[in-house]
Amino acid sequence: MVEPAVALFGEAYERAARVLEELLRESGARYTLLLDRKGFVLVHKEALWAPKPPALDSLATLIAGNAAATQALARMLGEPRFNELLHQGSAHGLYVEEVGELALLVVIFDSSAPVGRVKLYGKRAAQVLESITQEAVVNPGTLGIDSEYRDGANALLDELFGN
Amino acid sequence: MVEPAVALFGEAYERAARVLEELLRESGARYTLLLDRKGFVLVHKEALWAPKPPALDSLATLIAGNAAATQALARMLGEPRFNELLHQGSAHGLYVEEVGELALLVVIFDSSAPVGRVKLYGKRAAQVLESITQEAVVNPGTLGIDSEYRDGANALLDELFGN
Repeated sequence: MVEPAVALFGEAYERAARVLEELLRESGARYTLLLDRKGFVLVHKEALWAPKPPALDSLATLIAGNAAATQALARMLGEPRFNELLHQGSAHGLYVEEVGELALLVVIFDSSAPVGRVKLYGKRAAQVLESITQEAVVNPGTLGIDSEYRDGANALLDELFGN
Repeated sequence: MVEPAVALFGEAYERAARVLEELLRESGARYTLLLDRKGFVLVHKEALWAPKPPALDSLATLIAGNAAATQALARMLGEPRFNELLHQGSAHGLYVEEVGELALLVVIFDSSAPVGRVKLYGKRAAQVLESITQEAVVNPGTLGIDSEYRDGANALLDELFGN
């Protein structure tokens, strides 16, 4: 099963949510999401005035897939990957900014929010979010349950063979 | 077999090539390509000072594929598709602008070319290229060879059945 690489709980979640709210307020954007690169939504916020957002889970999966697909393109230009993507339609725009190695910040805006402003505040938010997510990385190799199980199994084997 | 939807020959090709050359000069970008949405390179130009470009055919296929993949994303936001894509890495950028329904203009630039300038001149170039490509649309239904073949085959059948 695919599991998120970052898990935000409690205080870290609250801090990330506050960063997204401030980003919405400063940039005038409609929705903003913090995604894990695998496509999981970690936190999302909508502006109070914005219409009902599209299905955020599907959107997140598409965006993460698309960001991964552009890596081949980036490598052809000699970059490890693109750290910023901007998709602009006639009335809506989508801005994606890298948040460290594991997460993506997505800002969805309409023509009322200037692109320059979205990018400026997006970059600032991404920096703060990077330090928050770095503390929330899920590392299955260091979970207590594994070492407990190993110690228990070792003790059992020792007992069995009389060491 | 996949065939290009637009074919630029002779005078139309020369005009498109001049538009791309001017775009390179004005924007300070490295390479520029006019692609058919299916991924065929119609015209490409490189700045004299730019290093050897990456394999343009592969690049074109990746870009066209990526532009098509973002349509699902655009539709979720209520847009038929995005008419502008910007991918930005640490030293290189890639700008894609829609040229009518069938073609894409690609500009590859490095940090010496300001993004705003690339977008401004890119948009202007895309407008001129749109009128050039509209005259060069390949419409297999109207090719002389098909109707000639049909007429010939009809004549033969008529002869066979004595009409």
